[in-house]
Amino acid sequence: MSTQPQFVASSIEDLVASLARAGRVAGRVLARLTPPEKERALKLAAAALRRASATVLAANARDVAAAEANGLTSAMIDRLRLDEKRLEGIAAAIDDVAVLADPVGAVIDEQARPNGMVLQRVRIPIGLIGIIYESRPNVTADAAALCVRSGNAVLLRGGSEAVHSNRAIHAALVEGLVEGGVPAEAVQLMPTQDRAAVGAMLTAAGLIDMIVPRGGKSLVARVQAEARVPVLAHLDGINHTYVHHDAEPAMASAIVRNAKLRRTGICGAMETLLIDATYPDPHGLVEPLLAEGCVLRGDARAQAIDPRIAPASNEDWDTEYLDAILSVAVVDGLDDALAHIARHSSAHTDAIVAADQAVADRFLTEVDSAIVMHNASSQFADGGEFGLGAEIGIATGRLHARGPVALEGLTTYKWLVRGSGQIRP
Amino acid sequence: MSTQPQFVASSIEDLVASLARAGRVAGRVLARLTPPEKERALKLAAAALRRASATVLAANARDVAAAEANGLTSAMIDRLRLDEKRLEGIAAAIDDVAVLADPVGAVIDEQARPNGMVLQRVRIPIGLIGIIYESRPNVTADAAALCVRSGNAVLLRGGSEAVHSNRAIHAALVEGLVEGGVPAEAVQLMPTQDRAAVGAMLTAAGLIDMIVPRGGKSLVARVQAEARVPVLAHLDGINHTYVHHDAEPAMASAIVRNAKLRRTGICGAMETLLIDATYPDPHGLVEPLLAEGCVLRGDARAQAIDPRIAPASNEDWDTEYLDAILSVAVVDGLDDALAHIARHSSAHTDAIVAADQAVADRFLTEVDSAIVMHNASSQFADGGEFGLGAEIGIATGRLHARGPVALEGLTTYKWLVRGSGQIRP
Repeated sequence: MSTQPQFVASSIEDLVASLARAGRVAGRVLARLTPPEKERALKLAAAALRRASATVLAANARDVAAAEANGLTSAMIDRLRLDEKRLEGIAAAIDDVAVLADPVGAVIDEQARPNGMVLQRVRIPIGLIGIIYESRPNVTADAAALCVRSGNAVLLRGGSEAVHSNRAIHAALVEGLVEGGVPAEAVQLMPTQDRAAVGAMLTAAGLIDMIVPRGGKSLVARVQAEARVPVLAHLDGINHTYVHHDAEPAMASAIVRNAKLRRTGICGAMETLLIDATYPDPHGLVEPLLAEGCVLRGDARAQAIDPRIAPASNEDWDTEYLDAILSVAVVDGLDDALAHIARHSSAHTDAIVAADQAVADRFLTEVDSAIVMHNASSQFADGGEFGLGAEIGIATGRLHARGPVALEGLTTYKWLVRGSGQIRP
Repeated sequence: MSTQPQFVASSIEDLVASLARAGRVAGRVLARLTPPEKERALKLAAAALRRASATVLAANARDVAAAEANGLTSAMIDRLRLDEKRLEGIAAAIDDVAVLADPVGAVIDEQARPNGMVLQRVRIPIGLIGIIYESRPNVTADAAALCVRSGNAVLLRGGSEAVHSNRAIHAALVEGLVEGGVPAEAVQLMPTQDRAAVGAMLTAAGLIDMIVPRGGKSLVARVQAEARVPVLAHLDGINHTYVHHDAEPAMASAIVRNAKLRRTGICGAMETLLIDATYPDPHGLVEPLLAEGCVLRGDARAQAIDPRIAPASNEDWDTEYLDAILSVAVVDGLDDALAHIARHSSAHTDAIVAADQAVADRFLTEVDSAIVMHNASSQFADGGEFGLGAEIGIATGRLHARGPVALEGLTTYKWLVRGSGQIRP
């Protein structure tokens, strides 16, 4: 006999469909809350999470113990582990999202037609967002807060390693949200860790409006391959920094060092450096990286810069290392750099360092990535750094929203038409 | 032996992939043309189409003769048939699109960050658009013109019935576009009528950026079911008009008549009329429709309005008639109307006729359709009527673009970041 009799008679598809329908109904209530009501509910959720601190940390300790028993890597266990300080950080992030400007109800544009009808496009929530994530329990709170602030219901499906942490965080959030007038079903956590639930979410077209995967490349690749629901995501961040021959050497060296080594594991890290053949100080670009232990792999001309640069294979140009490894190519000017980027970029973030404004403008115009930068480190590719206050993810698709996505990317619009009896001739 | 040796060795998937790759390369050239260059190229395309008039009409006569021999319905043959006047209309429509405001390059928003970086979101073309359509040869020109004006390459796949017409129109357009500096591959017509080509387009993720189906419900349903590429479309227009009890009777009667009978075959036509139980003159709403031969199907209370109203089945409330047929329900006020619409609307266009502004505002807020109207006929649901100058289609999905979609909906954006050496702390 199952201890979860409510699921015995149902397929996973039926479970996901019934959760989604309940979420959609709750979402229609949430969508009509005012900005102050949503702010208050989120602050109550943050307060409830702080109150539940002992419970959440105890649940997290169970997850960490299981992870250690199962031999998870120390990096995975670190992502999973919570303490007082991290939990306060999660609660504080909810408070921050609570006071972000509310996109819902904003008038995108307005026009009066010659026949007197007045048309507006007005921002509305998308509906029900599905979040599929891995071991970081903070995603439970971060994603829920962004969805609630933008008036969307959310169906969360976290990783099995964090199951107790996620349940404890979710229970606390819902307690606070309900106190603030948000229906409990507006923020649901998948009640089973059956992996088939992920597949059912991905194919729930018409029930889930958008899926946001948060996790490693294999998760994102699976979601993109299987989804019948629109997906907001990026698979790779194969980001280039091109140092034009007239770049100011100190600036170029600082940007290159920061773009690669500030944090090597984030999606905005540089993975390929392109150096003009006529740039006067190529060694000044690679020396600080080599000195800090970064592995460099280059084409023949790049290898000539320093004997410590290993040969690059064909795969290197299409590899997201997420590590202290960098591929380096020497190029013959802007057109050669643009051609390399067009061929190898994953359309996440590509940057140029150059003094000539006309060269920079051509780079900004012709590179077709979600984010294109001039004289700045690609590590700025982040919703917080872009002034969005937070981010639900970074998208490299071509439709709906690109680059760092926060509240506006969680909305859509409808047309309002106000007439006075107009009929069409 | 095949007479088309270039396809012998290739699978349909390879053919579509090679067309798409050529289209993408050409699209990058097209994307960089200035607004005056795109305007000039489109006007040259319209001129070339006018010059090719005799050739196009001869090709069309072949299609019409084949359609008659194959026993196509007169409605289908009418959609297929061109004459001097219709062809001039197609050319004039290209001239109109040529001078529409260019969305590409527009700055959506801009901000300076505290560290001095300046961020802009700038509109860019989406890339390569796939258009899958049926028997109307005008779509070849309309869709191509909208794509070129918005800087997108396009891969057209028209219906077999119109194959000679489409080839002749396409050849003329390309002649004019090339004269104007647009690469020929920016506007490609699928060179085979093999139905597998449609399937190959629908699954060409990463090669085709968006598919727009133009045609009947079975085409749209197939595209939505099979596509692995984002689709911009609507399946149904199950549009409601709700007559609130305080509606001005002459206005209500005129709107209802227009919404149903002006043209019954368009997606903006009303398919269900909701009448408040306390509306003083329900017979005044239905009498003009009945007098013009419209078939009415009602619930029990609606049938009581007039003996000529037949009983409605459960399916009627979910049926898009596209004909002089209307389902009619009597409702108990705004909440009842909202509940009916939430259950049965296809999210295309729903309207209220009411005097009370607060009632109208609740309807506009709470109805979740792409277009929501107050005191106007749902037949206004059209890109031209909405001031967009044209439309590539009407969308009822929730992401990217909704309602009538024209040039802006054929663009996306990228982030431009202009720095002066900023590195991330």
